Amino acid sequence: MASTTSLPFIGTLPTGMRDAITDVAGVTVGHRTLADGPVQTGVTVIRPHAGDPFRDKVPAAAVVLNGFGKSVGLVQLAELGVLETPIALTNTFSVGTVATAQIRDCVAANPETGRALPTVNPLVFECNDGFLNDIQRLAVTEADYLQALASTDADFAQGSVGAGRGMSSFQLKGGIGSASRRTTVTDGTPYTVGALVLANYGRQPQLVLAGHAVGERLAALQASAEPREPEKGSIIIVIATDAPLDARQLRRLALRAGAGLARTGSVFGHGSGDIVLAFSTAYTVPDRADRPMPAVAMLHDALLDGLFQAAADSTEQAILHALWRATPVTGRDGNHRAALGELLPASSLSPLA
Amino acid sequence: MASTTSLPFIGTLPTGMRDAITDVAGVTVGHRTLADGPVQTGVTVIRPHAGDPFRDKVPAAAVVLNGFGKSVGLVQLAELGVLETPIALTNTFSVGTVATAQIRDCVAANPETGRALPTVNPLVFECNDGFLNDIQRLAVTEADYLQALASTDADFAQGSVGAGRGMSSFQLKGGIGSASRRTTVTDGTPYTVGALVLANYGRQPQLVLAGHAVGERLAALQASAEPREPEKGSIIIVIATDAPLDARQLRRLALRAGAGLARTGSVFGHGSGDIVLAFSTAYTVPDRADRPMPAVAMLHDALLDGLFQAAADSTEQAILHALWRATPVTGRDGNHRAALGELLPASSLSPLA
Amino acid sequence: MASTTSLPFIGTLPTGMRDAITDVAGVTVGHRTLADGPVQTGVTVIRPHAGDPFRDKVPAAAVVLNGFGKSVGLVQLAELGVLETPIALTNTFSVGTVATAQIRDCVAANPETGRALPTVNPLVFECNDGFLNDIQRLAVTEADYLQALASTDADFAQGSVGAGRGMSSFQLKGGIGSASRRTTVTDGTPYTVGALVLANYGRQPQLVLAGHAVGERLAALQASAEPREPEKGSIIIVIATDAPLDARQLRRLALRAGAGLARTGSVFGHGSGDIVLAFSTAYTVPDRADRPMPAVAMLHDALLDGLFQAAADSTEQAILHALWRATPVTGRDGNHRAALGELLPASSLSPLA
Amino acid sequence: MASTTSLPFIGTLPTGMRDAITDVAGVTVGHRTLADGPVQTGVTVIRPHAGDPFRDKVPAAAVVLNGFGKSVGLVQLAELGVLETPIALTNTFSVGTVATAQIRDCVAANPETGRALPTVNPLVFECNDGFLNDIQRLAVTEADYLQALASTDADFAQGSVGAGRGMSSFQLKGGIGSASRRTTVTDGTPYTVGALVLANYGRQPQLVLAGHAVGERLAALQASAEPREPEKGSIIIVIATDAPLDARQLRRLALRAGAGLARTGSVFGHGSGDIVLAFSTAYTVPDRADRPMPAVAMLHDALLDGLFQAAADSTEQAILHALWRATPVTGRDGNHRAALGELLPASSLSPLA
Repeated sequence: MASTTSLPFIGTLPTGMRDAITDVAGVTVGHRTLADGPVQTGVTVIRPHAGDPFRDKVPAAAVVLNGFGKSVGLVQLAELGVLETPIALTNTFSVGTVATAQIRDCVAANPETGRALPTVNPLVFECNDGFLNDIQRLAVTEADYLQALASTDADFAQGSVGAGRGMSSFQLKGGIGSASRRTTVTDGTPYTVGALVLANYGRQPQLVLAGHAVGERLAALQASAEPREPEKGSIIIVIATDAPLDARQLRRLALRAGAGLARTGSVFGHGSGDIVLAFSTAYTVPDRADRPMPAVAMLHDALLDGLFQAAADSTEQAILHALWRATPVTGRDGNHRAALGELLPASSLSPLA
Repeated sequence: MASTTSLPFIGTLPTGMRDAITDVAGVTVGHRTLADGPVQTGVTVIRPHAGDPFRDKVPAAAVVLNGFGKSVGLVQLAELGVLETPIALTNTFSVGTVATAQIRDCVAANPETGRALPTVNPLVFECNDGFLNDIQRLAVTEADYLQALASTDADFAQGSVGAGRGMSSFQLKGGIGSASRRTTVTDGTPYTVGALVLANYGRQPQLVLAGHAVGERLAALQASAEPREPEKGSIIIVIATDAPLDARQLRRLALRAGAGLARTGSVFGHGSGDIVLAFSTAYTVPDRADRPMPAVAMLHDALLDGLFQAAADSTEQAILHALWRATPVTGRDGNHRAALGELLPASSLSPLA
Repeated sequence: MASTTSLPFIGTLPTGMRDAITDVAGVTVGHRTLADGPVQTGVTVIRPHAGDPFRDKVPAAAVVLNGFGKSVGLVQLAELGVLETPIALTNTFSVGTVATAQIRDCVAANPETGRALPTVNPLVFECNDGFLNDIQRLAVTEADYLQALASTDADFAQGSVGAGRGMSSFQLKGGIGSASRRTTVTDGTPYTVGALVLANYGRQPQLVLAGHAVGERLAALQASAEPREPEKGSIIIVIATDAPLDARQLRRLALRAGAGLARTGSVFGHGSGDIVLAFSTAYTVPDRADRPMPAVAMLHDALLDGLFQAAADSTEQAILHALWRATPVTGRDGNHRAALGELLPASSLSPLA
Repeated sequence: MASTTSLPFIGTLPTGMRDAITDVAGVTVGHRTLADGPVQTGVTVIRPHAGDPFRDKVPAAAVVLNGFGKSVGLVQLAELGVLETPIALTNTFSVGTVATAQIRDCVAANPETGRALPTVNPLVFECNDGFLNDIQRLAVTEADYLQALASTDADFAQGSVGAGRGMSSFQLKGGIGSASRRTTVTDGTPYTVGALVLANYGRQPQLVLAGHAVGERLAALQASAEPREPEKGSIIIVIATDAPLDARQLRRLALRAGAGLARTGSVFGHGSGDIVLAFSTAYTVPDRADRPMPAVAMLHDALLDGLFQAAADSTEQAILHALWRATPVTGRDGNHRAALGELLPASSLSPLA
C-alpha cells in the first residue's frame, strides 16, 4: 500500500487520525477476499457500532445518483430512516446470498425475528466485477459474509480487497478506498465525516485526479488494446458521521458525496449504479416502542455546510485512495487491470494552478 | 374455489373474460406451493409476456405506499422505467434465494449476462408469512422459483396458493387474489386493467368488504383469543394493462391501487409493506441500443381516469377474491387461520344503501 | 350550519372538543370571503401557532397524491422539513398574489428578510373555483390575505367560506370542512390529529358518504343537466397534530389522509391536485443557528398506527363536514351549486350494514 | 462581452453555432433588465418553441439538487412530465408577480383557461439578488415579464442582464451564462444539448475555473473586506436538447448538470436553491385528448452517455460564461460586485496539467 502522505490531498479540512471512515468512533470495517484464478471477488462489511443494529438502529438515508444497480434494503431505509444490519458490499450476483446471510445472522442473535419481532431488512450494495471475476460462478457464500463481519476492525485494508477485489475503475484496478475529514461547526463542536467507497466506475479519458485531468495521458500510457467503453461500472459510497443528524439531513449529506464523485470526472454514466448511503453514530433508535426514544438536539441545518464540504472532500479522497492503493489483479480469462500507481506515481502529478 | 358470481362486485366497469390479471393478453401466472406441517409458503411468478423480458423489457413503475418491506429491484426499475425479469412473490426471508434464482435463470438464457451484457435486475416482492409458516427455515429453494415459473398459465389458482400459502389478512387466511376491469377511453379504444394481490395485511376491526364494515362483526364471530395486533403484514399489488403508457403514467396508475386498498379499511399501517407495481404490455423496450426503439403514441394523460378507476376497482375486487377464495390453513406451532368464507358467506352481506 | 351531531360519524376514535383542526392546541383558522355576483372566492389561512413561524419554524411535510396543482412552497418544505409562514388556501389564479402578500408580511415583521436573513418561503395551496367564480378577474388582493390572517381564531366557519366560497365537489357545493380525532398511543399519551380540507374534487357517481354509495342516487335526485365530467377539481388537505413527529414521520402521516379521501370515492383523478400537508405543533425549529435546537424525543414509529387512523378518519369526516356545511352558491354566468343538505339530509342515510 | 474564444473550453465535445442554449433549434431567450440605483434586477424568459406551450406542451423534468428555493410549477411538471408556459427566471420576491403575469398571458391567448380548459401551470425560477438589488421593493412588474417575453430571440445577451442583473457568484458578479455541446450517439444522429444558467451561488475560496482552483488566489486579489459567508445564493440551470427523450430520461439528463456544477467548486450549499430543469424540443404533447399524441421513438437509454457528458460540460461552460461575461454592478446601499474579468483575465489561467 502506498503511504498516504505521498498522495494528493483534497481540500483544506483536516483528516481524522486514520484518514478513514473508522475515524468516526465506533465504526469498523472488515473484508473477506476471494482470490483464486478466475474467482476475484469478496465481501466488505461496515459495522456502524459495536452493538446489534437490529436492536439499536442507526439513523440513515440514501441517495441514488444513478440507479443502474441492484442494492437491497433501500425501500425500508427510506421509509423508516434507519438501518438495522451491518452494511454489506459485494458483487452484483452475490447480493441474494449476502442478504440471506444477514437474515440468518439476525435470527441467530434475535430468535424471534419474523415472529414476535418484525422481519429484518438486509442492506447489501453491489458493483459488477465481471471483468476480473467470474461472476457467474456465484462464488460468495454466506460464510464469507460472516467471515468479513468477524474481521471488522477500526484498522482495515484498502485497495484490491474484500468487495473491491475484482473491481475496475477508469480501466484501472479499482476497489476499496476510505478517507475522513473533520470540521468545526459554528457552535464550536468538531465533527468527523468519513467516507468509504467501492470504486468500479469511470471512463478513462474522463479521469481527474485531485484536479489534474490525467485521463487522456493515462490512456496513452496504457496504450490500451481495449476499446473505450461506456461507463458501466458503479460506485458505492458510504458516509459516516458523528454529527447528530436525522434521516432528512443525512439524505442531504449523502447527496454531497456526488460532488466529490463528479470532481473525479464522473457524469454518473447510464450504466453505473451510483448510490450513496449516509449514517450517523450520534444516537440510535430502539427496536421496540417500549424502550425510550432518544431526545436528540439535531444540528441546525444552517450549520451543515462544513459537513457537506467534508462529505465531498472525503469522497474524492477515498476514490484517490482506492485507485492508488489498489494492487494489479489478473482474473478470469486472463483479464488484467493495472494499478494506477504502476502508471502514474502520485509524485508525478504536476502541481495545481 | 368459490364461484366468482356469488361474490360482491366492485364498481360499474365490466370485467375481462376471467376477471383476473391474465385478461391482459400475454400475462401468465404460476405458483409453487409448499405445504408440509410447519412449512406453509411458496412462490408466485407473473410473466408479463411469453418472451424473455431481459431481451424485451417491459415498461413498469412502482409506488411504495408504506415501505416496511424488503422487495428487491425497485431502484433500477425507478431509474430505467422497465422490468427485465418475471415478477416473483414469496416470503420475506426467501427474497435472496429467489433473486439468485432469477439471476441464474437469466444467465442460462443469456450467457453473456454480467459480461458483454449488463447484469440483470431481479424483481422480487415479499410479505411475512411467519404466523403460519416457519419462515426461519428458509424453505424456499431456487428450484421452487423455477417450478413456479414453469407452471405459469393464463389460468391459475387463487387463495392459499403459491406465495399466498402462508399469508394472513385481517386475522383471516389471506393470499393470492386477482381481478380485472375493462374501460373504454374517450378515443373509443377498450383497454384492460388487471390486478393481482398478495394479501397479508389488515387489522380485523377495520375490514370493509364491498362497502360493508364487517370487521367488528367478524371479530365477534371469530371470538378470537388472539390479542388485536398492529397491522404488521403487507400487501403486494401488481397491476397490468394493455394500454400504451410510459413509466411516468404507470406510476400514476399504480398509485390508484392504493384507493382500492384504502376502501377495504387499510390505512397503510406502519408495519406493512404496501407496494404497487404497474406494467404495460402495449410495447417492449429492446435490451440493446442497436435494436430499434418502438415508436409508441402513449395514451393522453387526460384519458387516464377510466384506467385509474379500473386500477382501484380491480384491486379492491382482487382483495375480496383473495379473502373469499382462501382455504383455511394450519401451520407452524399449530397456528391456524380461518377462511373468510367459513365465517361470512358472501351471500350473507346485507345489501348496500 | 348543520349541527355536527346529526352527521354520520367516521370511525371509532373520539373527537377533540370542537371536532376541528383547532383542537390541536395553538392552531387557528381565519377566512376572507369574497361573494359578489360573479366573484365567489376567498382566502383561508391556518396559523400553526400564535408566534411568527419565520422565527419559530414548524416541522412539516407534504404528499402529492396527484400533482395537477399549482401550490407554492413545497420544494423548500421538502428540503428543510419545516414551514415558515402561515398556510394559505385560495383559488388557482390568486396563488401569486397571496404568495407576494406572505412575503411582504414577513418583511414587515422581519425587516432583514432577504438581506441579513434568508428569504422567506411562501406556502400557498389552491383549487380551481372557476365554475362559480370568475377566476379570470383575479379578484383576490394582498389585503384579502391579511384580512384572513387577522381573523384567525380557534373557532371558525366551515362550508362556503374563505377559499371554499367558490369550490365545487361531486357537482355539489364544496368548500371548507374540518374535523379531529384523539388517540392514545401505547405509551399512554393522548394526541390529537386535526384535518382541514378545501374540497373541490369528485365525480358525482362515485360519491360515498360514510360508507354509503350515494352517488348515483344523488345524480338522479339532482337530475343534473350538466354532462358528467372528468374529475378536474382538487382537494387540499391539511393535517395538524400535537404528537412529536419529525418531517419523515409527518410525510407518513400525510399519506394516510389519502386513505380517508379514497373512502369518499376518489381515485385521485387525473385533473385533480390532491395534496396533503401535515405539521406538528409539538416543537419548533429556530430560524437561526445561534439559537438552541430543541432536544425532542420523537414518537417511536411503531406507535404511529393510531395517528394514521386518526388522519384517515378526520380527513373523511372533514370532507363530510365540507359537503354538509356548505350553503348553495350562485356565481358567474348564473352557475349554481346545490348544497348536499338540500338534497340528502344526513338523517336520510340508510344505516350501514 | 468578452469573446468566447479567449475563455477556457470545457471538455472535448464540439459546440453548436452560438455556444448557447439557442443552438437547440427553436429555443429563444429574452431579457428585461431593471438597473436604476438600488433596483438591479430583472426577468429572463426562455421559450422552448415559437408556438404556445399551453397548446403544445413540452416534455420536461426537474431535479432539485438543493431545495432552498421558491420556484413555482414543479409539482405539476413532475406529475405530467411537461411544461406549458415559457420558463421565467427572476428574483425571489418577484416570483408571485411573474407567475401571475404568466397566467394572464395564457388567459389572453386562451380565453377558456380555467373554465372549459384547465388552469395553466406557471413556471418561474428564482435566485436572491438582495445584495445588489433592493429586493424588498418588489420592483418587477407583470409588464416586465411581458417585455422579456417579447424580446426573446436566438441571439441574446449574457452576463449582468435580465434576471442576472443583480446576482452574485463566488463574491463576484454573477448572472446569465449559456453554452452548448453537440454529441453523436451510436446510431449516428447528432444531437445538441444547451445550458443556460442563472448563477448566484458559490463561496469564493472554493471556486474552480476549468480545473484551476483559483478561489484562494481571487480572495487574496480581491482583499475583500466582506466576511466569508456561507453559500446562500442559488443557481438555476436550464438544459435544452433536441434529442427525443421522455420525462424520465430528461430527469436523468438534468441530474448531470449537477456534475458540471460540482466541478466549479460547489457542494450544493445548505442555503442554495440549486435546481435543474431539462426539456426536449423533439416533440410536443397536445393540450387536448382529441388531438393525436405523437408516436415518438425515444432514444435508447444506453445511448444517453454522450448527452450526459454534454449536459455536464455545457453547464460548466455556461457558468464560466456567466462569470466572465458579467460586468461589474453597484447597487443598493452602494454594494458592489466586481467582474471576474477585471481580476482574472481568462488568459491568465495557468495551463492545466
